[in-house]
Amino acid sequence: MKKYTEINDIKNIPQTITEAIALKKAPFEHKSLGKNKTLVMLFFNASLRTRLSTEKAAKNLGMDVICLQISNSWNLEFEDGTVMNLSTSEHIKEAAKVIAQYADIIAVRAFPTLKDKELDYAEVIMNSFSKYADVPVVNLESSTAHPLQALADAITINEFNSDAIPNVVLSWAPHPKALPQSVANSFVNMMQKLPVNLTITHPEGYELSTEITKDTQVSYDQEEALKNADFVYVKNWSSYTDYGQILSQDSDWMITQHKLNNAKFMHCLPVRRNVVVEDAVLDSDNSLVINQANNRTYAAQVVLKNILENL
Amino acid sequence: MKKYTEINDIKNIPQTITEAIALKKAPFEHKSLGKNKTLVMLFFNASLRTRLSTEKAAKNLGMDVICLQISNSWNLEFEDGTVMNLSTSEHIKEAAKVIAQYADIIAVRAFPTLKDKELDYAEVIMNSFSKYADVPVVNLESSTAHPLQALADAITINEFNSDAIPNVVLSWAPHPKALPQSVANSFVNMMQKLPVNLTITHPEGYELSTEITKDTQVSYDQEEALKNADFVYVKNWSSYTDYGQILSQDSDWMITQHKLNNAKFMHCLPVRRNVVVEDAVLDSDNSLVINQANNRTYAAQVVLKNILENL
Amino acid sequence: MKKYTEINDIKNIPQTITEAIALKKAPFEHKSLGKNKTLVMLFFNASLRTRLSTEKAAKNLGMDVICLQISNSWNLEFEDGTVMNLSTSEHIKEAAKVIAQYADIIAVRAFPTLKDKELDYAEVIMNSFSKYADVPVVNLESSTAHPLQALADAITINEFNSDAIPNVVLSWAPHPKALPQSVANSFVNMMQKLPVNLTITHPEGYELSTEITKDTQVSYDQEEALKNADFVYVKNWSSYTDYGQILSQDSDWMITQHKLNNAKFMHCLPVRRNVVVEDAVLDSDNSLVINQANNRTYAAQVVLKNILENL
Repeated sequence: MKKYTEINDIKNIPQTITEAIALKKAPFEHKSLGKNKTLVMLFFNASLRTRLSTEKAAKNLGMDVICLQISNSWNLEFEDGTVMNLSTSEHIKEAAKVIAQYADIIAVRAFPTLKDKELDYAEVIMNSFSKYADVPVVNLESSTAHPLQALADAITINEFNSDAIPNVVLSWAPHPKALPQSVANSFVNMMQKLPVNLTITHPEGYELSTEITKDTQVSYDQEEALKNADFVYVKNWSSYTDYGQILSQDSDWMITQHKLNNAKFMHCLPVRRNVVVEDAVLDSDNSLVINQANNRTYAAQVVLKNILENL
Repeated sequence: MKKYTEINDIKNIPQTITEAIALKKAPFEHKSLGKNKTLVMLFFNASLRTRLSTEKAAKNLGMDVICLQISNSWNLEFEDGTVMNLSTSEHIKEAAKVIAQYADIIAVRAFPTLKDKELDYAEVIMNSFSKYADVPVVNLESSTAHPLQALADAITINEFNSDAIPNVVLSWAPHPKALPQSVANSFVNMMQKLPVNLTITHPEGYELSTEITKDTQVSYDQEEALKNADFVYVKNWSSYTDYGQILSQDSDWMITQHKLNNAKFMHCLPVRRNVVVEDAVLDSDNSLVINQANNRTYAAQVVLKNILENL
Repeated sequence: MKKYTEINDIKNIPQTITEAIALKKAPFEHKSLGKNKTLVMLFFNASLRTRLSTEKAAKNLGMDVICLQISNSWNLEFEDGTVMNLSTSEHIKEAAKVIAQYADIIAVRAFPTLKDKELDYAEVIMNSFSKYADVPVVNLESSTAHPLQALADAITINEFNSDAIPNVVLSWAPHPKALPQSVANSFVNMMQKLPVNLTITHPEGYELSTEITKDTQVSYDQEEALKNADFVYVKNWSSYTDYGQILSQDSDWMITQHKLNNAKFMHCLPVRRNVVVEDAVLDSDNSLVINQANNRTYAAQVVLKNILENL
């Protein structure tokens, strides 16, 4: 792996999942691989799971880790040719090249505006780091993608799957705030590359980009979609077509124990209890959310390991 | 030790003090003990001494340390059954279980509201982490207790004591802001378990919880209380009975060199000079405040060492 | 080296530059030197390059590093004898002595007020740490000096110089915000100690302190000053005489490719493109800004190495 900004950067997903599960059994076996290597993690937004799991993964590999809440420092400029006499005090060209002087791998979290669809889907921050930093870049959740989460999810499904081809449903659920499409986008991308039967269900108006969904089946009828589901991945996102808007807060879309039947419940967390999903689901044995969170470490570790091996 | 959220978690205090003093002489002797173990430190509030001393203690033992200013991330929900459609975005059940996936020990700082006595004295945050995280929890100062400070204080008294049974006085002193009772509570708890003669002195209305003071002698006459004192521990706290209120800012309660006589002066720091205590005391050889701060490292280290040995 | 708060702390600058360049070739060769040693970095202000490069330098030497954004904690008191009943909650006397309990070296960043010239030029924060902390102190940019930057600049000039005595010009350039004189001050200090021919050019009113400039030639004619320059170091600073004020935003002082001719362009970064310097310069091979940023690591590393060797 040369970088991990999108799921396509993984050449062989089943093999990567197998390798991650091996790392989970022996997390410290490659501790010399990261010796004298530094991971610089840049956060334009807050982070809990991603911060902790990625830092732990890097240290499991023997790397040094430096975390920087870059929003506390200064505003970066991303446009070419700008006269920088307003609020931005450093251009991404310099920032990325400079940080690459101190890092063997740079990892970046940068959320979308949810106001400007073209800007967000152009992935300006992530792509600028990839373009100007001459070290590998890892996506810690960008405007439109969360590939480390999707890899952790794939590992988790692999661990709990007992069917040849499981039925996986991605269901939208209500939320009081406008959220990115990134987790949903990456989950769909990932599932499309695995031997699963994927269905997406959401209210009308919540269609994801057709460049993401391609020919995946979409249903506006949650009950119908959940029938025979083995894994139900639940996530809120704001509208892609009516970009960044909340079109529905319909609590009928909340996931209940009754709706789930015996399917496994998945969510990337943080999750709002009794809004997105009722307590009974999260507190049941069918909830995989803690397993998913645990697998974040090994998703990050397999990615960092593969990048380190290609430095 | 299985955890250290309260002083009762130490089975044998004199032996723990002896062990801490041994660690102070050879801080790096157990560096292999923490190998491949991670301490995650969560700060709901600012920290200087606790942050630095605990991180140093953990690294002295060879641990990896990850610090998270959790107030920068998002608001946690602590109530059961809530419909989380307001400002809290993650429930402590998930947060604690998730963080425990990345940590071998979790350390938490969380100050009181000073508005809701029942809530504060229920120690909701600390107890929730203990309940839901299946790794040991260390208290970095909670709503009502600061057991690492009290252990450092006990070590310091042990180092400087020359009497069989020293006279120890805990004296309230004025302060412009409403402060928690946590340091005072834990100091009293700790002294009650050691061979010292403890007196508490404060203005009327500043009585600590009787569950803390038990049969410890309390005096409203500071001058009387300080007579024959060997160690004078000074600290402001807001009222427990008139919860969180400042009832007095009477500068007659400020500690002076004259009042101290030859007693040793102790304070957990930070301290407001010439409000809590006059310059002459802090700048004299009778001040033990820097020694106390130094012993914070070995208090934390002996606790972490004992927890690591029981993992 | 006993400390590095000012350039005078380096006894032999050419030898230090040589040693830094050797470290650049073999950065991990002294990894046992910092074993069980802790660098505590305190930031009163935001930092990107200094934070990353100094942390990397310390880890290259095998040190543990603890970073604290101290502005997030509490306000320190620097005056003697104050009755601390207002906004400051800890005196530098305690803070510095306490932090020294946990650190083998303390590094401090603290910007000027740009309002009170005497206060800023008294270097109260840096000097107080030096006075009260009984461990070595490193300046990560103070009110009036940035000696690590100046050392990185000297290393860079050494690497790119082909003349016996190069012509070095420090040119003021416009900027929309009032900036410190620290980088300019330290660059002048450093160049005065090296075999270079230094000229300073700026609009009238931007004279640096005569204690800094001494007998260095100063010109108000940028074009004249830039003639035959080998290295052009560009930096904005606010007025020293009319303290902290912006007297000019004259874009005629912006550095262009045409003005530079074949001289090497230097800047400490962050730099505002097309305000301080035009894109064409930064994007050309004559720009050394990324090399300077890279050398920040080895400037910090040679300083920390020399301090560690003298502990």
